[in-house]
Amino acid sequence: MIPTITAFASSPDRGRGLARDMPVRWALEEVGQPYDVRLVSFAEMKEPAHLARQPFGQIPTYEESDLALFESGAIVLHIAETHAGLLPDDVNARARAIAWMFAAKSTVEPPIVERETAILLEKDRSWYEARLPILDDRVRKRLGELSRRLAIPNGSTVRSAPATS
Amino acid sequence: MIPTITAFASSPDRGRGLARDMPVRWALEEVGQPYDVRLVSFAEMKEPAHLARQPFGQIPTYEESDLALFESGAIVLHIAETHAGLLPDDVNARARAIAWMFAAKSTVEPPIVERETAILLEKDRSWYEARLPILDDRVRKRLGELSRRLAIPNGSTVRSAPATS
Repeated sequence: MIPTITAFASSPDRGRGLARDMPVRWALEEVGQPYDVRLVSFAEMKEPAHLARQPFGQIPTYEESDLALFESGAIVLHIAETHAGLLPDDVNARARAIAWMFAAKSTVEPPIVERETAILLEKDRSWYEARLPILDDRVRKRLGELSRRLAIPNGSTVRSAPATS
Repeated sequence: MIPTITAFASSPDRGRGLARDMPVRWALEEVGQPYDVRLVSFAEMKEPAHLARQPFGQIPTYEESDLALFESGAIVLHIAETHAGLLPDDVNARARAIAWMFAAKSTVEPPIVERETAILLEKDRSWYEARLPILDDRVRKRLGELSRRLAIPNGSTVRSAPATS
């Protein structure tokens, strides 16, 4: 059965594909899995029909036969586990790849989202201008840590951190 | 081989077990897996030896033979995948449980961490008092969405969201 995902009917970034449906679409395209897209409005996302699929009123969701999933990280992991080509076969390499999925969602993304939230919701507050450089620095710090790891000469450390040092 | 995890040598909450090593310890205790704990200071967390294990200079890490992992969500998932009792056997139920793991780390936790960050790092800023209620509301909104899902009468929706509505 062809899975159906949801995406913004009208995106804050004018639909340029930067919302959280993007990694799900990317994973599906990588493995050659056809899929349908159902676009939902911001009003629809807060209605019971969508909240039954996504308790936090967000996109994306993923529906396939009797399976309904939410959370882009979990959806991508499900696609990776049910199609060849996205995760290594070696069990340790696979665990390390999944560690980087959690890092992307719970360590790298949050300071970026915090900055976006300030721009969207606190632009009219008195502190906005003074606080924005603090948020920029938090994003730079996190991306700097990521860059330092990616720059380590042996080039394999993204999926293979040394066990001891 | 008995795994080794890292935890704060000196915790901001005076070691009461609320740091991110807690879910890892909890998972290990649930499955009856013995483990060693290596305590690291804040200075040690930023040194090359620890950064090789944890690129963002955080705890916890997990080492077992030639496998080194970071990210508490990924570590808990690894423990769940290599021991019986934490994840359902049914493949769809398992995918739904993992969706809730990503939800915990990338949807429920971030507004709570944002509030903690403000308390730790912005307490001396002019906007601190005015901004704190906004952060409280963001936490309440997210926890309210979670509570509404958990309160659905059939009681099974944490692991079993309806596929359609």
